[in-house]
Amino acid sequence: MRYSKSFIKTSHQAPKDAETASHRLLARGGFIYPLGAGFYSLLPMGFRVYQKIYDIITEELNRIGVEDMIMPVVHPARVWKETKRFFEVGPELWKIKNRFKEDFVLAMTHEEVITDAAKPIISSYKDLPKLVGHIQTKVRDEARARGGLLRTKEFTMQDAYSFDRDEEALDKSYQKFIKAYNNIFERVGIETIMIESDVGAMGGLGANEFMMIAKNGEDKIVVCKKCWHAVNADVLGISRESNAIRKGTKCPKCRSTNLTFKRGIEVGNIFKLGTKYSIPQKLFYTDERNKEHPVIMGSYGIGLERLLASVVEASHDKDGIIWPTSIAPYRVYLLGIDKKSAADKTYQQLTKAGVEVFYDDRDATAGEKFADADLLGIPYRATVSAKTKGKIELKKRGSKQVKLVTTSELARRIK
Amino acid sequence: MRYSKSFIKTSHQAPKDAETASHRLLARGGFIYPLGAGFYSLLPMGFRVYQKIYDIITEELNRIGVEDMIMPVVHPARVWKETKRFFEVGPELWKIKNRFKEDFVLAMTHEEVITDAAKPIISSYKDLPKLVGHIQTKVRDEARARGGLLRTKEFTMQDAYSFDRDEEALDKSYQKFIKAYNNIFERVGIETIMIESDVGAMGGLGANEFMMIAKNGEDKIVVCKKCWHAVNADVLGISRESNAIRKGTKCPKCRSTNLTFKRGIEVGNIFKLGTKYSIPQKLFYTDERNKEHPVIMGSYGIGLERLLASVVEASHDKDGIIWPTSIAPYRVYLLGIDKKSAADKTYQQLTKAGVEVFYDDRDATAGEKFADADLLGIPYRATVSAKTKGKIELKKRGSKQVKLVTTSELARRIK
Repeated sequence: MRYSKSFIKTSHQAPKDAETASHRLLARGGFIYPLGAGFYSLLPMGFRVYQKIYDIITEELNRIGVEDMIMPVVHPARVWKETKRFFEVGPELWKIKNRFKEDFVLAMTHEEVITDAAKPIISSYKDLPKLVGHIQTKVRDEARARGGLLRTKEFTMQDAYSFDRDEEALDKSYQKFIKAYNNIFERVGIETIMIESDVGAMGGLGANEFMMIAKNGEDKIVVCKKCWHAVNADVLGISRESNAIRKGTKCPKCRSTNLTFKRGIEVGNIFKLGTKYSIPQKLFYTDERNKEHPVIMGSYGIGLERLLASVVEASHDKDGIIWPTSIAPYRVYLLGIDKKSAADKTYQQLTKAGVEVFYDDRDATAGEKFADADLLGIPYRATVSAKTKGKIELKKRGSKQVKLVTTSELARRIK
Repeated sequence: MRYSKSFIKTSHQAPKDAETASHRLLARGGFIYPLGAGFYSLLPMGFRVYQKIYDIITEELNRIGVEDMIMPVVHPARVWKETKRFFEVGPELWKIKNRFKEDFVLAMTHEEVITDAAKPIISSYKDLPKLVGHIQTKVRDEARARGGLLRTKEFTMQDAYSFDRDEEALDKSYQKFIKAYNNIFERVGIETIMIESDVGAMGGLGANEFMMIAKNGEDKIVVCKKCWHAVNADVLGISRESNAIRKGTKCPKCRSTNLTFKRGIEVGNIFKLGTKYSIPQKLFYTDERNKEHPVIMGSYGIGLERLLASVVEASHDKDGIIWPTSIAPYRVYLLGIDKKSAADKTYQQLTKAGVEVFYDDRDATAGEKFADADLLGIPYRATVSAKTKGKIELKKRGSKQVKLVTTSELARRIK
């Protein structure tokens, strides 16, 4: 893609309300555009990263047997009334009415909807287990959005659901997702730890969160210095705002009182829902003796935009983003200095070789082009100029080393 | 995928309100699930078809230079007030309020949002032309949904936008989209004609629709028998309900009065928006002499679920759907009769060979399996049974001819 044809404009100026590095850099780099507080468009540069994260998630979930589907964003209130969440969830559940004054909600999660859809499908033990999921828009009427893509009012979530006959089988499904989630986070280039967490508005038998440790994380994690068990502070009744662990608080695992705080960004959470939805929504199966039981469910979620922003939090420097190769929007940032026709030719050659290349063909100074290359964080920068005598200056983002290569070497090296 | 693991259950019974073949067959085949009137989930079998349509659309639009992005479903009313559409569009524009009583709308279309996003990006003639688009949820507060996926309250739309410096350049962008749209419809397997249409709530300089001719189509097309020019009846002031062309009505092209009706399903529409959005939203560019002009826009849309249903309308028989190979959910429907281990082995071989195979491994009669194979409309049916002595019975959906082939021939033939 040529810069001049792309729907992008970078900026020196970060938004006034930008408190986090990811917010500043994604806005400055033209990855995102704020339509309003908490509502973002992913511009083409951001969408390319999103799409790569989407593909990695889909691949890892398909590998454990999850089938993909799609459920609506607007839900008739009926299903939310069946589980009583219509009345119980706080104001972040966005309730709306249609022209006939009928109640609807905007999808905060999809447990009710998937349980409803499962009723004609699951009726016998022979129909179990099932794993199914989708990647779809979620909407929350948050009082305050913050941190750019880290906490928005509308975002995309991968949410998957497991249906099993008993808790032992649920455990197996749960373990499959833990493995898939660990693979996903590793592949997008962040380090996470899995911690014990509160079930919250989802209800059920237990829950875990995947946390990326980050200085400016919103979540407080209590880590036991003896057994290294980690739990979300809210499990121990410690509020997000609190800065102290109450004296006598014990590690839920080894009972040690030698505890410490860490901060994290929650990038995934998984829930053993048990019968929280299947009983009120009447999702039952009959066993080998024709006896009826409620289906045992699990729910598994990753917020895509938050994950994207978390990668930026984990991987940037003062000049811009440093994308891991697996999710970089392009493989190489190509620019020409005083050698327009040579750069054009290199662009055509790289495109032909199937390399994802972003070609800065603007009428701009070398300094401006170098600055944008650093800001956008594309893994390689290739410079075509008169002084390199037919060769190309190749530099890896984040490194200072520069190598002179021929065009054919270039395509091979960065592939 | 094994039938027993898949999130599917077929049914002999069509929904009571199903008036169209696509509604009946998609519901019976477990492609879709109605959450409420006009709100459908695409179950895994339906999502696979949707995904193939999605990929074809993306490929054809990328080919003409469209960049992909994603915009929100919930819009702060600000942008819709700027163009006055907040006040002018009828009740199908779903207006909602958040917890602070601020106005929002659910995305009916995205002209306002893309124009807003373009403002920091387009300021000079050097920034033009640009082509950008997304595939995203649309919501309409329709009084009455009908026809299954043909007219819903929530659906997915591919909508793209062009930004040009003048009407001549817009014409060029418009022609590119006409070509891409014709390719898309051809590749998904339907025949369409492009007709003249009314600009409606979108406004602008002119519009065209892509129509699939269908007996039970909702749209009335007036065709001139002399020059074969076709226009939507509403362009001539003829209402959808009317069954007669007023005497003296003339073809807008050749002025002949020899006109006739056809019915169609609208599967795509394109609009020369002109300055309808750029002027009120202040999207201007400066030319070579530093003079300011409004950007000239175009808008281009295809509803994915409606397109999917239209294919079913065009391609089915009394037993079920007949998917065109390009968008079929699987390539082959494999089933075993009294030879479970042989069928299992064939399933593994085909999967290994990279064939998309749906394997009916249920404990069901041959009749039940054949009926589902026909209903689901997968292009090939492969039957493993004792009587064929190690060979496989291969049948193409919609044909009566049966061939005996070896497993290795099978993979080669259906690929």
